[in-house]
Amino acid sequence: MQPTKLTLALDMMGGDHGPHSTIPAALAAICEFPELNLILCGDEAMLTEQLKLHGVFPHPQLHIRHSTQIVSMADKPSVALRSKRDSSMRVALDLVDKGEVQACVSAGNTGALIAMAHFVLKMLNGVDRPALISALPAVEGNPVYMLDLGATVNCDADTLFQFAVMGAVMAEEVIGISQPKVALLNMGEEEIKGSDQIKRASMLLSDCNDINYIGYIEGNDIFTGKADVIVCDGFVGNVALKTCEGVAKLILRRFESSIKDRVTAQLFGWLIKPFIKNLYQGVNPDHYNGASLIGLRGIVVKSHGNATKDAFLSAIRQAVREVERQVPAKIKDRLEHVLIDKA
Amino acid sequence: MQPTKLTLALDMMGGDHGPHSTIPAALAAICEFPELNLILCGDEAMLTEQLKLHGVFPHPQLHIRHSTQIVSMADKPSVALRSKRDSSMRVALDLVDKGEVQACVSAGNTGALIAMAHFVLKMLNGVDRPALISALPAVEGNPVYMLDLGATVNCDADTLFQFAVMGAVMAEEVIGISQPKVALLNMGEEEIKGSDQIKRASMLLSDCNDINYIGYIEGNDIFTGKADVIVCDGFVGNVALKTCEGVAKLILRRFESSIKDRVTAQLFGWLIKPFIKNLYQGVNPDHYNGASLIGLRGIVVKSHGNATKDAFLSAIRQAVREVERQVPAKIKDRLEHVLIDKA
Repeated sequence: MQPTKLTLALDMMGGDHGPHSTIPAALAAICEFPELNLILCGDEAMLTEQLKLHGVFPHPQLHIRHSTQIVSMADKPSVALRSKRDSSMRVALDLVDKGEVQACVSAGNTGALIAMAHFVLKMLNGVDRPALISALPAVEGNPVYMLDLGATVNCDADTLFQFAVMGAVMAEEVIGISQPKVALLNMGEEEIKGSDQIKRASMLLSDCNDINYIGYIEGNDIFTGKADVIVCDGFVGNVALKTCEGVAKLILRRFESSIKDRVTAQLFGWLIKPFIKNLYQGVNPDHYNGASLIGLRGIVVKSHGNATKDAFLSAIRQAVREVERQVPAKIKDRLEHVLIDKA
Repeated sequence: MQPTKLTLALDMMGGDHGPHSTIPAALAAICEFPELNLILCGDEAMLTEQLKLHGVFPHPQLHIRHSTQIVSMADKPSVALRSKRDSSMRVALDLVDKGEVQACVSAGNTGALIAMAHFVLKMLNGVDRPALISALPAVEGNPVYMLDLGATVNCDADTLFQFAVMGAVMAEEVIGISQPKVALLNMGEEEIKGSDQIKRASMLLSDCNDINYIGYIEGNDIFTGKADVIVCDGFVGNVALKTCEGVAKLILRRFESSIKDRVTAQLFGWLIKPFIKNLYQGVNPDHYNGASLIGLRGIVVKSHGNATKDAFLSAIRQAVREVERQVPAKIKDRLEHVLIDKA
């Protein structure tokens, strides 16, 4: 197939639900974007059958690329990288590398996706390590970009600095915030707090005129809109994001059990239940937004492993937006500019 | 004054509200514990005046120890340590050191309290660094102890191991859980995940028969009761705890604004508002429980800087419980036992 204006590869077999989520999401996406072409990577027989069940086979916007393997959620990244070269995930990444598509989307095993994407696509010049970035909800105003959410466990000051630059580009290009406020996540706002890497990264950012660096913020300010971009290492970001999920569940469980306790409140359960569902969706970024793997020579969007049709569709939309805004090229340009400025 | 059976020193001047919170909490505490003696550290004239206003001066359970300085929330720990030797915080810690009291409670500057407590009280044998530990709410069952919440930024594997032992002793002695389940907070449950320190700490804990080590848990399982004790370094613990506060606020703001949006729900605001307040208190451990600074040769309980009377009273109760259960001696015994076992 020739590359067209807007073509994405989808890993159809990834995630807990596989084609049961990814097929309906793909069908919704081609309705939403009439110019969009999708290359569906996975088991051809199964995908054909599913598409026929939906009454949409053949379809001019949909193309199947057969693959024989599936990366499971339990596969170790290193093993997946070595032994699953014909998996739907790997085939989708190879299509990005070959320029047949402009981006790929997967709900599969995060560790395997990071390892494969890093291996297949390689890093942009000036970027040492990839980062997972996601837009989190804020109390009011624009969402907040946070990175890294788990791609790179140990980050030195230079890596944190590069993450800050990449996060700023994402906030500018994808959300459209001019001069986004960039902060480092720390355990206090005072200059003396935190690890040596964070203190050094803070100095690098303070010296950089291209970044609107506002200093340190603490965990309780992640959602207040104080910063547009929040930078931390992958370990801290992953723990913080998953802790959010834990707190949201704790609050909603308590809410539900409290409703059971009160006879009066029980009467209004019909009113409160849909609200709870919306609330949970609104504050659970891990489930309802895709995370982008950035710093690579190509666009890779990761949907949650437990992604529903809506979540996978939202990840496809995000990939479309990043293609339209040419995010990797913008990151590359900005990094070159910043590094020349520093030199 | 001679030491009596149960005597605590209170830093009356610490925290955002100073005597306005600490005096009412002290008065409630002596009613609750008739055998309790309190040494109130702070400005004598101010404390006397406040006690007279409450109609309880003199009182056989209350003793004032005058101090001329106050550690402010903005003071750098190193500066407070050098130049505030007659502060209410330092005087309270000195009383613990001299054996005139069995524990002290402060709502003051956390960093200064950690630095001063470390300097004045010194570490227990076998413990390299202090840890802040707090009991967090769980979805059901017992609360969960998490440490370190910010005392020690960088922890090597041995320090994490010692924290695990100390956390287990707290869960056994203070909550009364037999063989508490101990977990390391990590970015995945698989053995290959995480930093080198965490992997080594995991090996040390797996080899230790005295600890019921259950492996890694992720941030979304902090509140599920999967573990009774959760161990991490001070940076990660601090970010996780403060992120909880941020999420709780985000959810409740959204809840309130959603109520405004729905005319029907507005009618039931009177019903929901008190619930929100309770919910917030229940899920905001930072505000409603004291954190204990453990690993030292004395008991130090830290109440939140913004502590209300109830929060400070809860910190006093916690100090009483730790005195009764002789927590530092139990930690020392357990560590000796574990280290002999390892040798």
